[in-house]
Amino acid sequence: MEIKKSNFSEWYNTITKDAELCDLRYGIKGFVVFRPWSVMTMNKMYSMMEREVEKRGHVPALFPALIPESYFTKESDHVEGFVPECMWVTRAGSHELDEKYAMRPTSETAMYTMYSLWIHGAKDLPLKIYQRCQVWRHETKATKPFIRSREFYWIEAHDCFATEKDAMAQVREDMEMSEEVIHQKYGIPFLFFQRPQWDKFPGAVNTFAADTLMPDGRTLQLPSTHMLGQNFSKAFDIKYTDENGKDEYVWQTCYGPAISRIYAALIAMHGDDKGLVLPFKLAPLQIVIVPIFRDDTKEKVLSECKKLEKKLSKDFTVKIDDSDNTPGFKYNHWEMRGVPIRLEFGPRDIESGQVVLVRRDEKGKNPVKLTELKKAIEKSAEEMLANMLKKADEWFASRLSKASTMDELGKQLKESEGFVRIPFCTDQMEAEGCADIVKDKWSANVRGSLFGDKEKPKGEKCVGCGKEAKIYLYAARQY
Amino acid sequence: MEIKKSNFSEWYNTITKDAELCDLRYGIKGFVVFRPWSVMTMNKMYSMMEREVEKRGHVPALFPALIPESYFTKESDHVEGFVPECMWVTRAGSHELDEKYAMRPTSETAMYTMYSLWIHGAKDLPLKIYQRCQVWRHETKATKPFIRSREFYWIEAHDCFATEKDAMAQVREDMEMSEEVIHQKYGIPFLFFQRPQWDKFPGAVNTFAADTLMPDGRTLQLPSTHMLGQNFSKAFDIKYTDENGKDEYVWQTCYGPAISRIYAALIAMHGDDKGLVLPFKLAPLQIVIVPIFRDDTKEKVLSECKKLEKKLSKDFTVKIDDSDNTPGFKYNHWEMRGVPIRLEFGPRDIESGQVVLVRRDEKGKNPVKLTELKKAIEKSAEEMLANMLKKADEWFASRLSKASTMDELGKQLKESEGFVRIPFCTDQMEAEGCADIVKDKWSANVRGSLFGDKEKPKGEKCVGCGKEAKIYLYAARQY
Repeated sequence: MEIKKSNFSEWYNTITKDAELCDLRYGIKGFVVFRPWSVMTMNKMYSMMEREVEKRGHVPALFPALIPESYFTKESDHVEGFVPECMWVTRAGSHELDEKYAMRPTSETAMYTMYSLWIHGAKDLPLKIYQRCQVWRHETKATKPFIRSREFYWIEAHDCFATEKDAMAQVREDMEMSEEVIHQKYGIPFLFFQRPQWDKFPGAVNTFAADTLMPDGRTLQLPSTHMLGQNFSKAFDIKYTDENGKDEYVWQTCYGPAISRIYAALIAMHGDDKGLVLPFKLAPLQIVIVPIFRDDTKEKVLSECKKLEKKLSKDFTVKIDDSDNTPGFKYNHWEMRGVPIRLEFGPRDIESGQVVLVRRDEKGKNPVKLTELKKAIEKSAEEMLANMLKKADEWFASRLSKASTMDELGKQLKESEGFVRIPFCTDQMEAEGCADIVKDKWSANVRGSLFGDKEKPKGEKCVGCGKEAKIYLYAARQY
Repeated sequence: MEIKKSNFSEWYNTITKDAELCDLRYGIKGFVVFRPWSVMTMNKMYSMMEREVEKRGHVPALFPALIPESYFTKESDHVEGFVPECMWVTRAGSHELDEKYAMRPTSETAMYTMYSLWIHGAKDLPLKIYQRCQVWRHETKATKPFIRSREFYWIEAHDCFATEKDAMAQVREDMEMSEEVIHQKYGIPFLFFQRPQWDKFPGAVNTFAADTLMPDGRTLQLPSTHMLGQNFSKAFDIKYTDENGKDEYVWQTCYGPAISRIYAALIAMHGDDKGLVLPFKLAPLQIVIVPIFRDDTKEKVLSECKKLEKKLSKDFTVKIDDSDNTPGFKYNHWEMRGVPIRLEFGPRDIESGQVVLVRRDEKGKNPVKLTELKKAIEKSAEEMLANMLKKADEWFASRLSKASTMDELGKQLKESEGFVRIPFCTDQMEAEGCADIVKDKWSANVRGSLFGDKEKPKGEKCVGCGKEAKIYLYAARQY
């Protein structure tokens, strides 16, 4: 029985410690030290994501980490949603500050205050700015490294448009970008749900959130993109003068992929009982060379390994493990850290001009001619991602089910461990009570309607109130 | 008369505003919004610097932005040096915290607390970790964007070694890296001074700081590298067991290039009265194409410009300015923003299969065959950096002078506007009073001894106390 399946929480805690991804011994509760092995991968994730964000017309900026209290009070839903979680700076040196400053929990209020100074006419639109930064939220829920901590790392893109239609097109672009990067490149499947009105981002008109699943069947929210409408532009006075000389409020969207949390999904989705499994392009170390020798062949083998390392380092990140440990110890060590490709290189291999290639995601040992090695590595890298993606997609698809009644919902949550589609009266505020019933009965959350799903219930009843169902929503246990 | 020369401060303020580098209207004093045009360049500077830091064996990590007050008190010089400038988080949500947390002014205390848990044996050394982050210091001095603000962006590398010799070799490596990146790639000349004992980093044994000069002759500190000795390892209990089974404290160094401040030097060193001048590899936009047309040629010219843009975009960042402004307006607009290469493209150019290339750093217009354009751009980029570097180096060299007496020092500070070498009694603590005399008399600071300079005074007197001079130190007015 695999530990990852039987006890995901224990597996996750072990792997984040043994692969040296983080350290929980820092002196502030909920604040985590991210160690090099996770940061090297997160940096690659950042680069890929920033490249895509910029390709779609966003430019980077940097706004202060501190936000004056007065900025928060401008949008009333937003202040209610975030102020309870804010960490406050009240002192500098030995004196009290006149106004207290929040460590940003998100940057709408900081950025939109400036946007109102920068946007004048239609020529200033669209305005598409992102920042790469960390944010702080003093969560009351239990923290778990990468999944939820009081400090996390993300990208936040904040865009302004002349029309509602342009803004909605941006929401769709954000979703496509999520699919292209997080699903296709990181290999993490998810679904975009339009959140029910009672669970949207504070201040938004609508929230669209990508939900993935953890191995224990609980859902984890990855990026969300928000249609802000004119709620913030009215609160922050962001106007442009249109072609008729009339002042109009801009339409806004924002998008926030949390890199540290997506990294949690990466660990959980692909890892196995031996440790991390990382896509080739996200691995801190792509290839480890393990020399196989006895005393009399040591010198020769190490010297050949060095030649091999030098050759491969032109195209890949590669390193010889020339420690005093046994080959078996080395295999375990690098498997725990998710190194995608291991090359075993001994006297007989040298003689026959080959090397043994082992992929992290499968068991076989493959002898490869040295002359064909570069091509074989590139092919393995591609096949590995395709294989990881296929496995993940199949697993994810097996976790989607349907229920028509509250009892069926309970059964499916237990059996399929994932998302269960249920008939619901509505996703408007008045149905929050029905969601509470689901929550009380099965500890599951109503995550919203599947984006793009046109199917409507016919003759079914809401699992909560029993009234006629108008919409299908999805429920899942959540992190 | 150039404004940059006659009134540098005004020139600097104008350029940071007109080139849209930053916005000072944010609601917290000393906190600046960095706008896209500066951030795009700073991101490139970050990439170059991180590549070099990693090439030299550093790995990235991320430590919390908040530091418990108790961590600070472990090293007494450090606490005295930094605590007066700390910004303190005292509240979360609506409740007071039990312990207050400092927003990191620098990360020694956060990182070394963890290092003591990570380092056990000689095999754990050297430990070379860096982080890319922002820091906060509630400065009492006047702030100026990029030069000094209460929030700034840097890299900090913190290394541990088994021996003092290894640590000192790291200090030298940090200096070489500064030379290779900041001087050779950004084109900014500087000198490394060993700071006098009274002006070293709080907690360090010795501080080596790269000082450049601003156009007004005032000096600005760029990266510094610190020999920490065993001061912190003793305070934070960072020990390793050596080959004889004996516990030894590690030797430490740290290095901190502030990217936002180096960006200030980049603006100041290369800019001119038309605006920014940026090295090709650091420019947010490398090439701007300005179409030259009349009504009847507009369509044809724009279509050819688009073809040209498409072709060049494979290798460079390039954009057509197809706004309704006049060519002259466009020239000014992009010159202000420091775009290195302008291509003017009109009907006659199209006919003769050429384009007019204009370099930002010189006046001439150079017709180039379209078939040779890529090569010409690459050559221009190289020549431009070489030219900027040469100009900067010559200017910098002209700002170094010598004085033997207090009066001569005053004269040289005024005439040469830069660093003046002066004979001094010593650079130990007891000479701080002599430095105060220099400060009081000429508003100049004693910056330390030139690193690697072996020359000693013979028969000269200290400019401060008049005792026999033992060492040459350098003085300059400073930011």
